Amino acid sequence: MQVQVISSVNEASSARFHQKTAVIIDVLRATSTIITAIAAGALCVIPAETVMEARALQRPGDLLGGERFCRKIAGFDLGNSPDEYTEQVVAGKRIVLTTTNGTRAIHKSMRADNVLTASLLNAEACARLAVDLRRDVVILCAGSHDEFAIEDGLCAGLVLDKLHSLSHVTVEMDDFGTAMLALYRNRSAQVKETIMNGMTGKKLLKMGMKKDIEACSAIDIYHEVPRLNGDQLTRS
Amino acid sequence: MQVQVISSVNEASSARFHQKTAVIIDVLRATSTIITAIAAGALCVIPAETVMEARALQRPGDLLGGERFCRKIAGFDLGNSPDEYTEQVVAGKRIVLTTTNGTRAIHKSMRADNVLTASLLNAEACARLAVDLRRDVVILCAGSHDEFAIEDGLCAGLVLDKLHSLSHVTVEMDDFGTAMLALYRNRSAQVKETIMNGMTGKKLLKMGMKKDIEACSAIDIYHEVPRLNGDQLTRS
Repeated sequence: MQVQVISSVNEASSARFHQKTAVIIDVLRATSTIITAIAAGALCVIPAETVMEARALQRPGDLLGGERFCRKIAGFDLGNSPDEYTEQVVAGKRIVLTTTNGTRAIHKSMRADNVLTASLLNAEACARLAVDLRRDVVILCAGSHDEFAIEDGLCAGLVLDKLHSLSHVTVEMDDFGTAMLALYRNRSAQVKETIMNGMTGKKLLKMGMKKDIEACSAIDIYHEVPRLNGDQLTRS
Repeated sequence: MQVQVISSVNEASSARFHQKTAVIIDVLRATSTIITAIAAGALCVIPAETVMEARALQRPGDLLGGERFCRKIAGFDLGNSPDEYTEQVVAGKRIVLTTTNGTRAIHKSMRADNVLTASLLNAEACARLAVDLRRDVVILCAGSHDEFAIEDGLCAGLVLDKLHSLSHVTVEMDDFGTAMLALYRNRSAQVKETIMNGMTGKKLLKMGMKKDIEACSAIDIYHEVPRLNGDQLTRS
């Protein structure tokens, strides 16, 4: 299995996903939130690139979620904090979600044969599913403001570590993948601290959102891997 | 001291170097060769972006060096292997050098206040000089074919590790810098092996250039830090 890793959504061209399994990572916070919502029983999450598109996609009974500048969008039901997406709130609901980078990354990868969403919360389950799907893999780190984000790199490294530990798979990585695996292995005992010292982590801390970082730093607490079906992310 | 790391020459915009010290890294092989040449007593190395430009810059007595597709250019005196740049050959000479990525990276960074060249061969000396120059630092990993190259990332991490060990300096890194430092620290006992398993390393091995990889993998064997003066890299 060949695995390429892309450092930010800026670097991703649709052509690179052709005939691949895409793994989209936006640890702070889009994919962490999507995974939490699906694990809490949401029917599906529909990624929208803009606020206007999100409103247009909403049908009666749907919840609108998302953020701009890290804050909940005016008039939306939910922001982009995993903790808001509890069973009580989301079970049985469709959620239309728009975030700055995460949903853009999902849209970029739509030419892939399979589009999976990963975060620290479901890395192992995502690695297992990627192996079962028998395609080469492109991991897209969404990043922040068109730059590489350390939390997404750590998660890419964790997924690669899991792929390596599935002993029946030979994993060939590109140079950036090799770097992300080494990053994860060097920082695996300080994942939360590393995230808090990153650019996005510092910004969320300053805005009083430490709880979000904690919610997004737990490793392998979910087995669900939200996967694109048409325009909806559903339980795979 | 703020330190930013750029993953490939493709990602570098001139504006990012304004009022900074630029550290250019192309381990395989441009900056390793430049450092070896200057340490062997070459008067200067003049980076040229094209073969035509190199020929135009050559004055009587100058040596022409460089590569295209990893091979020596027809009619040139020298290729891009550090081993060719011995004292016997280069002492007292001006060398005009053109390579695929390295010289492009140097040209990109010309708006910086200082332009230094680093490789594994002189990482500590380069870190010390960067501290003495009292500017924020931008480390540019040249990469290969517009992609990140693991050997350049390792070297960026080594320079960061040296900057951290100079205890009178507080180093603030961007997220990519944090990742490269972790990469180096995870792979520091297998630097040569990591390089040989990288994209460029594999290509050079296939072309029978293992000796070049070995010559470029030695750590801190030189104190010289070639530095841009006008259009020439000279002993700083």
